[in-house]
Amino acid sequence: MLFAAVFDEIIKKIKSDAPLVHHITNYVTANDSANTVLALGGRAVMADDAEEVEEMVSLASALVLNTGTLSRQKLASFLSAGKKANQLGIPVILDPVGLGSTELRKELISSILENVKLTAIRGNMSEIVSLSGSNGKTRGVDSTISTLDGGESTAKALAKRWQCVVAITGKIDIVSNGTEVYHIHNGDPVLSKITGTGCMSTSLIGVCTAAADPLLGTLLGLSIMGIAGETASMRLQQEESEGLGSAKVYLFDALSRFSINHYLERGKIHEKN
Amino acid sequence: MLFAAVFDEIIKKIKSDAPLVHHITNYVTANDSANTVLALGGRAVMADDAEEVEEMVSLASALVLNTGTLSRQKLASFLSAGKKANQLGIPVILDPVGLGSTELRKELISSILENVKLTAIRGNMSEIVSLSGSNGKTRGVDSTISTLDGGESTAKALAKRWQCVVAITGKIDIVSNGTEVYHIHNGDPVLSKITGTGCMSTSLIGVCTAAADPLLGTLLGLSIMGIAGETASMRLQQEESEGLGSAKVYLFDALSRFSINHYLERGKIHEKN
Amino acid sequence: MLFAAVFDEIIKKIKSDAPLVHHITNYVTANDSANTVLALGGRAVMADDAEEVEEMVSLASALVLNTGTLSRQKLASFLSAGKKANQLGIPVILDPVGLGSTELRKELISSILENVKLTAIRGNMSEIVSLSGSNGKTRGVDSTISTLDGGESTAKALAKRWQCVVAITGKIDIVSNGTEVYHIHNGDPVLSKITGTGCMSTSLIGVCTAAADPLLGTLLGLSIMGIAGETASMRLQQEESEGLGSAKVYLFDALSRFSINHYLERGKIHEKN
Repeated sequence: MLFAAVFDEIIKKIKSDAPLVHHITNYVTANDSANTVLALGGRAVMADDAEEVEEMVSLASALVLNTGTLSRQKLASFLSAGKKANQLGIPVILDPVGLGSTELRKELISSILENVKLTAIRGNMSEIVSLSGSNGKTRGVDSTISTLDGGESTAKALAKRWQCVVAITGKIDIVSNGTEVYHIHNGDPVLSKITGTGCMSTSLIGVCTAAADPLLGTLLGLSIMGIAGETASMRLQQEESEGLGSAKVYLFDALSRFSINHYLERGKIHEKN
Repeated sequence: MLFAAVFDEIIKKIKSDAPLVHHITNYVTANDSANTVLALGGRAVMADDAEEVEEMVSLASALVLNTGTLSRQKLASFLSAGKKANQLGIPVILDPVGLGSTELRKELISSILENVKLTAIRGNMSEIVSLSGSNGKTRGVDSTISTLDGGESTAKALAKRWQCVVAITGKIDIVSNGTEVYHIHNGDPVLSKITGTGCMSTSLIGVCTAAADPLLGTLLGLSIMGIAGETASMRLQQEESEGLGSAKVYLFDALSRFSINHYLERGKIHEKN
Repeated sequence: MLFAAVFDEIIKKIKSDAPLVHHITNYVTANDSANTVLALGGRAVMADDAEEVEEMVSLASALVLNTGTLSRQKLASFLSAGKKANQLGIPVILDPVGLGSTELRKELISSILENVKLTAIRGNMSEIVSLSGSNGKTRGVDSTISTLDGGESTAKALAKRWQCVVAITGKIDIVSNGTEVYHIHNGDPVLSKITGTGCMSTSLIGVCTAAADPLLGTLLGLSIMGIAGETASMRLQQEESEGLGSAKVYLFDALSRFSINHYLERGKIHEKN
């Protein structure tokens, strides 16, 4: 449990500082992302008009850029907010929702990558693999990136290229800062049956990196989601009339009751190299 | 229980294929629609930028067009996605939310009807009656359509005119493909007290028609919502501190636990002619 | 319990008339606002396209203008809907979400104040204090407004200036119509841990002022939220696995089960001068 002491400090810092996480995000999961940040003790604001995002991010301690329900007009907002956050030294977390599905997402996410210095990127395997070809220059021809090994080398190579933390979430979460690679063995299949748990994970990384360095903040954010998913699942198995409605309630219950003891009991971060 | 065997097959097909349902929908109920699709075993994506909807619907097995929180700029997205779905033979389901309330809705929904071949339309009585005058040519003068009989002839005439399935949901759901007319006697008043259950019903039709023909998919989707509403209501009556918050949780629980046995026990589809 | 008899009448009127509350609001809390209105027995519609808001508000009994996820293009909708509501004598409630954070919010909210006759304004202390300098003319120089006393004189002066009811919600809610000032001592800290409870309070004022005069509607709406928050909190303390997910469910349960008896038992409105 190498991380427990420092995670304990981060959690305490979030509770005492109540960092504000500015989201430019989608309308499907915005409410859940806001409640996730509140559950941990942070504060959330969603604002996406290009005219006001610079000012809004100036009040914040972290910025989350989420490309769900994307539109071209959001690009100016992503870039203004991202650049301002860079100037101010505020962490910027990218969730490239749906990357790989349309040219618009590829173009706009490439533009974010080229113009904003990211702190962390979180996506599923498909999104992160698509990211390998998304800088507009080496699309699909970068032979240094392979997924044959299950994502470790992809995460590591992308983290090195973009000088940020890259997290691939799935059955096992893979996290790399370009040098080290970690696996997180927490989580439960129920998380994939509730819409928005990916976005919520990214919001957790946002609130944790507001109070910690990028690698630790990412590892803690994803550990919290995985462990809370397990807690929700265990509770769900007790009664036979319960299903996905209860699962979502239990997930928020578990997020809001998360403490370092849950990590001490069940945290499973393994270094891979 | 004529439908049970084929419904069983459809449910199994949804679980095994996990069809993707592309929604162009409103920001009020988008989260609930997504979770409804997931509860049944499908997958959902919400994307509405005109630049990307053609590509997105190409990845999908059904398209839901929902006119809540409508804007004129969404029309191009509705039409592009709808026409592409038609080309690809993917079912297109229209939920004409709020039709009858404003000229904008009348104009945009008429445009959808004239440009997109629909698989099914679901609305409440007021919306579907308004649809009778919504083709931009015969507004208000189509004497073949009457609601004096409770909607059967309206549903049948519209289904014949637009060559699709038309469903009017309410205390009793009316479903017609232009030839046959069915009544579904499931449901519970609690469904009308939770925002978005209409949209959710349409999403259920989307995921079911992705795995079945239009009539069967519509009958199954609406039966699932009706029966799940009953299940939620029964559970709600057991404890006295519970109200609409619990009702919504129980509804999602029931949707995710729906099996053919619930239909066998409580399904109530009656052919009317 | 001076208010109990008249509050009882208002609640009955809402249940019998089911007033429609038109919202031009944000995508983060729209679903919760809609369910809040339904929980009380009203109906909700969210529509924000400038082309249709005049027609939509003509069908409504109250209009809520909420500046969360603000954009410049919404201003035309706010003004059209607001002016039409004024013509029709329909109450207009403003929730100046995030006022004080950006110039855009200051400008657009000033424009609303100058062009629309408001019935009530509800915000937190920071938003309402910012409102003191938001008429575009006396920004920051209005010495008649002070918060040294905890908000009473701010609320009273703003209410007098804008000839509407002003409510500052917080640990104690302050409500003034420019002449009288009231304190509401209901509520629970859990309300500040769930996103959207401010927006929901404003929606409650909307549905209550649809059935009552502005002062009474505001006092009742805020009393309902405060008492429902207490009910949710009491229920929450009973079981140790529960957290913010359950809290939100219990809040909606309590809203939907609210009756005049809850007010008789726990209502705490005090006149302050």
